[in-house]
Amino acid sequence: MTRTITILGATGSVGASTIDLIRRERDKWRVMALTANCQAAELAELAKELNAEVAVVADESCLPALRSHLSGSQTLAAGGAGALNEAASRPADITIAAIVGCAGLAPTMAAIEQGKTIALANKEALVSAGEVMTAAVSKYGTTLLPVDSEHNAIFQCLAGNSYDHVRSITLTASGGPFRDWTLEQLAAATPAQAVKHPNWDMGAKISVDSATMFNKGLELIEAHHLFPVGLDKLRIVVHPQSVIHSMVEYRDGSTLAQLGPSDMRVPIASCLAWPSRMDTPCAPLDLAALGELTFRAPDEDRFPATRLCRLAAEAGGAAPAVLNAGNEIAVAAFLAGHLPFTRISVMVEELLGRYAPAAPVALDDVIAIDAEARGRARQLLELV
Amino acid sequence: MTRTITILGATGSVGASTIDLIRRERDKWRVMALTANCQAAELAELAKELNAEVAVVADESCLPALRSHLSGSQTLAAGGAGALNEAASRPADITIAAIVGCAGLAPTMAAIEQGKTIALANKEALVSAGEVMTAAVSKYGTTLLPVDSEHNAIFQCLAGNSYDHVRSITLTASGGPFRDWTLEQLAAATPAQAVKHPNWDMGAKISVDSATMFNKGLELIEAHHLFPVGLDKLRIVVHPQSVIHSMVEYRDGSTLAQLGPSDMRVPIASCLAWPSRMDTPCAPLDLAALGELTFRAPDEDRFPATRLCRLAAEAGGAAPAVLNAGNEIAVAAFLAGHLPFTRISVMVEELLGRYAPAAPVALDDVIAIDAEARGRARQLLELV
Repeated sequence: MTRTITILGATGSVGASTIDLIRRERDKWRVMALTANCQAAELAELAKELNAEVAVVADESCLPALRSHLSGSQTLAAGGAGALNEAASRPADITIAAIVGCAGLAPTMAAIEQGKTIALANKEALVSAGEVMTAAVSKYGTTLLPVDSEHNAIFQCLAGNSYDHVRSITLTASGGPFRDWTLEQLAAATPAQAVKHPNWDMGAKISVDSATMFNKGLELIEAHHLFPVGLDKLRIVVHPQSVIHSMVEYRDGSTLAQLGPSDMRVPIASCLAWPSRMDTPCAPLDLAALGELTFRAPDEDRFPATRLCRLAAEAGGAAPAVLNAGNEIAVAAFLAGHLPFTRISVMVEELLGRYAPAAPVALDDVIAIDAEARGRARQLLELV
Repeated sequence: MTRTITILGATGSVGASTIDLIRRERDKWRVMALTANCQAAELAELAKELNAEVAVVADESCLPALRSHLSGSQTLAAGGAGALNEAASRPADITIAAIVGCAGLAPTMAAIEQGKTIALANKEALVSAGEVMTAAVSKYGTTLLPVDSEHNAIFQCLAGNSYDHVRSITLTASGGPFRDWTLEQLAAATPAQAVKHPNWDMGAKISVDSATMFNKGLELIEAHHLFPVGLDKLRIVVHPQSVIHSMVEYRDGSTLAQLGPSDMRVPIASCLAWPSRMDTPCAPLDLAALGELTFRAPDEDRFPATRLCRLAAEAGGAAPAVLNAGNEIAVAAFLAGHLPFTRISVMVEELLGRYAPAAPVALDDVIAIDAEARGRARQLLELV
């Protein structure tokens, strides 16, 4: 049986992993839309290879290049925000929502409104749009599958079980490259040091989030929306080897955990084949070769991000969107050398204290709050 | 909704854990039959407390004592093998099959023939009767739930998944009290040393099985019958902390593991409530407090039992029953001081080489093979 698929963010790392899996069972998939920000040549290559119906660049200025690369092919070229949303609304059995940051919000919502299956890799969308997005999922009867390795692990561990029986959900955290650093060392941490993640090969922004543990905090907010068991049942444990991706403990004392390699193809394959399973080329788990798995409690004195994220999730409404926007601006400032590492969370906390708009009820509200929060975060930066 | 339950082996450790759970939700259960070997006073107390319909002692000589302890109560007293089988055939929504050793074979088969749910804690029954038992389960449409912590873990990790998608199943083994001993030390191991199990509080026979790793080998044979994915997909890893109870790896590279305390109430609760969950008083898992989980490959030079069990499972037919009978006789001889620890597996291997009867097709065949194997094992002992 052939299934149709759209990949929002086809040239990013989740897009590449998805396409790697599709290539392995090429006859099972028909590709509807592939999108990118502006990587016209790369996107055109993929679209031609996979015989996509439409290829879209979000940045309209890149459309002429895309057209030229696609000339003579069957694939329709399009560009701009409207075209991106239109592509996301084309019927597809499964949509991989993998556009990074708030740019992915609108197309992800458009895909959700199809009422089919969304494999969600866009963390910021769920953090910022929270209730707006989960309400749409519920309204349109959409199946939301989490791609993030932690949330995918939880999803697998919950299979067949009721939320009523969950005693706790524990997200594992690598602890990032600075997990053993003192506060003094953290204050002097450089961007080059922060982007070296021990277990996963990631972009700069998410690497800094891993170093501050904002990444884990944002995942906590995501988990709060995806698995409504109550914030008090969501835990974090530091597990440097990142072999256990997350866990669910049940009322009878059973804990189910999902383990695997640090390879995004595993959770993506789980989404693509769900509720079945498909092959991946990932090496088998060899615990005897690994020897040991270690665990420790998170230290919120050195890494206050998870505490801030929990507070934002508790506050609900606009707070997570404000927190996320503030963090994005602060991380960019850190990467540009304008903000010390330890000031990232300080700045986010200040922003949360100063800007507390009403809860968003629609996507436009979320986008407006995000823009306003970014502006105010930039103003705070000037005060540093 | 009230459910009916029968506990075969009510005065043993699995029986006690089951009754502890029933007491916690007394209004949900109606107790049909409770059985014991000869613990008349204890059995009568339980039967009166739980208002059981019938109480049975397998040893008929204990029936007068049971009658006297039950006089004036509503519970019917009965004794002997026939009464045991009759009790096991009384309709019950769930039967806990927890009689230790081959004595549990016939009543477990009688319970299976009801076509309801059996929570199987009798390892030897499945090892010895193997195909005879699984054929009956299939014929009568019985639901077989494994109580053993490892198999219950695997059962939970398989929920909702097809055997076709399983890449491997890994049983964890504590490695027993001698896991770090040299061959020379093992040759001089005493019964007192062998019965001190590091993680579980168990009887003498099963403690010795843990020390030789026959316990894990027998579990491998059990797993082979319970989860027919093929012997080549069944693995063992030594995990001294016994926190991960077992694992299932899928074709996509996801491994699901079940973790929990070393408390039999967890897997028993899982069986009692399946496919739902019930509360137990077991403490939450605290991996940060545990700090580390370690793993290593089994050493079959020092502990050849798992290799022998795998060979017996591969041979199939009567071989597992012969192996199990030989091991029971050898362990008894070791506990009595008549056989060195390292000769247990040597004797079992010799017996397997000398006695290879035709595959059993019915329960009587299994019982005859078991008896003959025990006789031959005793003869081998005289040669030692």
